[in-house]
Amino acid sequence: MSELKNDRFLRALMRQPVDRTPVWMMRQAGRYLPEYRATRERAGNFMGLCGNPDMACEVTLQPLDRYPQIDAAILFSDILTIPDAMGLGLYFETGEGPKFSKVVSTEKDIDALPVVDMDKDLTYVTDAVSLIRRELNGRVPLIGFSGSPWTLATYMIEGGSSKDYARTKELMYQQPQVFHKLIDKLVASVTAYLNAQIMAGAQAVQIFDSWGGALSHSAYHEFSLAPMQKIVDGLIKEHDGHPIPVILFTKGGGQWLTSMADSGATALGLDWTTDIAYARHLVGDKVALQGNMDPAILYTNPQRIREEVSTILQAYGNGSGHIFNLGHGVTPHATPENVGAFFEAVEELSVDYH
Amino acid sequence: MSELKNDRFLRALMRQPVDRTPVWMMRQAGRYLPEYRATRERAGNFMGLCGNPDMACEVTLQPLDRYPQIDAAILFSDILTIPDAMGLGLYFETGEGPKFSKVVSTEKDIDALPVVDMDKDLTYVTDAVSLIRRELNGRVPLIGFSGSPWTLATYMIEGGSSKDYARTKELMYQQPQVFHKLIDKLVASVTAYLNAQIMAGAQAVQIFDSWGGALSHSAYHEFSLAPMQKIVDGLIKEHDGHPIPVILFTKGGGQWLTSMADSGATALGLDWTTDIAYARHLVGDKVALQGNMDPAILYTNPQRIREEVSTILQAYGNGSGHIFNLGHGVTPHATPENVGAFFEAVEELSVDYH
Repeated sequence: MSELKNDRFLRALMRQPVDRTPVWMMRQAGRYLPEYRATRERAGNFMGLCGNPDMACEVTLQPLDRYPQIDAAILFSDILTIPDAMGLGLYFETGEGPKFSKVVSTEKDIDALPVVDMDKDLTYVTDAVSLIRRELNGRVPLIGFSGSPWTLATYMIEGGSSKDYARTKELMYQQPQVFHKLIDKLVASVTAYLNAQIMAGAQAVQIFDSWGGALSHSAYHEFSLAPMQKIVDGLIKEHDGHPIPVILFTKGGGQWLTSMADSGATALGLDWTTDIAYARHLVGDKVALQGNMDPAILYTNPQRIREEVSTILQAYGNGSGHIFNLGHGVTPHATPENVGAFFEAVEELSVDYH
Repeated sequence: MSELKNDRFLRALMRQPVDRTPVWMMRQAGRYLPEYRATRERAGNFMGLCGNPDMACEVTLQPLDRYPQIDAAILFSDILTIPDAMGLGLYFETGEGPKFSKVVSTEKDIDALPVVDMDKDLTYVTDAVSLIRRELNGRVPLIGFSGSPWTLATYMIEGGSSKDYARTKELMYQQPQVFHKLIDKLVASVTAYLNAQIMAGAQAVQIFDSWGGALSHSAYHEFSLAPMQKIVDGLIKEHDGHPIPVILFTKGGGQWLTSMADSGATALGLDWTTDIAYARHLVGDKVALQGNMDPAILYTNPQRIREEVSTILQAYGNGSGHIFNLGHGVTPHATPENVGAFFEAVEELSVDYH
């Protein structure tokens, strides 16, 4: 593997000194970019794009080519590849969210689910990781990722997106032991999946707990955080002589940062509802923090974006341990120009804090 | 006005001693009740029901007749009556959320909006309040309510429900002074509306900030909490010799309880993501707390419901200042039997804490 030319992202995760705050953007390879839309068009559909390592590599690199300030690449894939590999049949209908052709309803359904076997399943993902890592040629580090067990479970039980997770919560509250069997299979699968990504070249991993914020305080700790903690425990700690940092991102998890900081993760992702100054005060020097600009700021103009970047940098304050990002994925409504202004603002304004 | 026979709810709001924890349920007059569905059917449509004081009174009283444990009635109405009175044309399409036939997009649109004039507008609401108060005949206190300015603004700009409030946030972030003009009109309207409800007989009021949780930390304080604080300041403090408590409920507001407690409100509503023990620790003796069972617990069974009620009572601990409620409105999927088990559990188990 070629030497890393820009290790700002990895250094900030380990809270080592950096020259400026590193930056990347969740969903940076996405529909706001015309070059992404062109590749997506060629692929035919979204899963065709995820399932083709060459195309997945191509779109992963697109934002890096356009915005030289980006300090990390993230594997282009979907969070629902694991349930798909378990046989649920993931598909996307135009204009709608993800759907599964089979849903999980009963204990029997859960017992019948296989744990993913990385020697057979999801090789299109690990192939993409290897290829991207090779094509990056040391420009920036590559992040691998997975959905969290709780988040994956909601899609598997609801059959797609959901407003209130009624069926998932019914099973979870009514038959917690049955629900734990599903979560345990997902813990084993996510662990194997992330370890395979690390072996294929991912230099950091992020766990996306997109719907953890829908849980009660105690249910979050039992059904989302504890399983993620088991995954963190089971991950390869070092590869090629480098530590592998783990970022935990529970959207809507701002009330649980203290316990998240004790999970063994290297860094916590923050959504935009959290005051990053207060978050830093809460977590102390246990973890780094990633985030947390409201993606809707990207609907405004370069001057307003610059002001918001400045406010967040000031709120985090001096020193390393901050990876600048949005508080959630960039949306298709953002313009490439405004995204550029965002990256430039972080590059320019963050120098003063280091 | 007849003497109040059950003042447990009002006493708990003022943190005065009570014999047990009072309880009511957001959306307690709602689709989970067959008697509600029958009246709704007769009314033809939802706005027909809200707009008819006799029917609004009838459905307000239905849960009280079924469940003798309920300690407060809440006016049956919609949170969007104010934008409707401003001329936006509220309607409901079957199976979908509320919609407006006109939306607010520009400064000109905002300038053209009238502040509601309670001598002319929304008399169907104040008529319903007077009638319900008379029909209650002192059984339990009556709660009036309104949506918060921020929450109303999102519907007025998006034209209905929204996933990410893109247009609202664009206006708010891009032209904050223009957005403040809209918020100011809503502050004046909500204040007049709640005061009219108080004059008509509401003995407490609740402000529903359903979408405040979608805001960033600083935007919440500027565009949602500060306007609600202005409303609290402008409300009638006493009526008929009784103080009028104000409950502030920001769904997703668990990170902002400390500043909410300084708003002048009597009590804060908590959604189920917040640990009520920690919330009590945070707010001290500044405010009472209302909440906060996950409505999804009502999909389980009486035993499980009883356990959850017990856990929340224990978390709040001894003494007054807790009004038991769900963390959000009850959904149509809950069964009347399970709702009954919820009310009974609070009645029986809370005695030990007083």
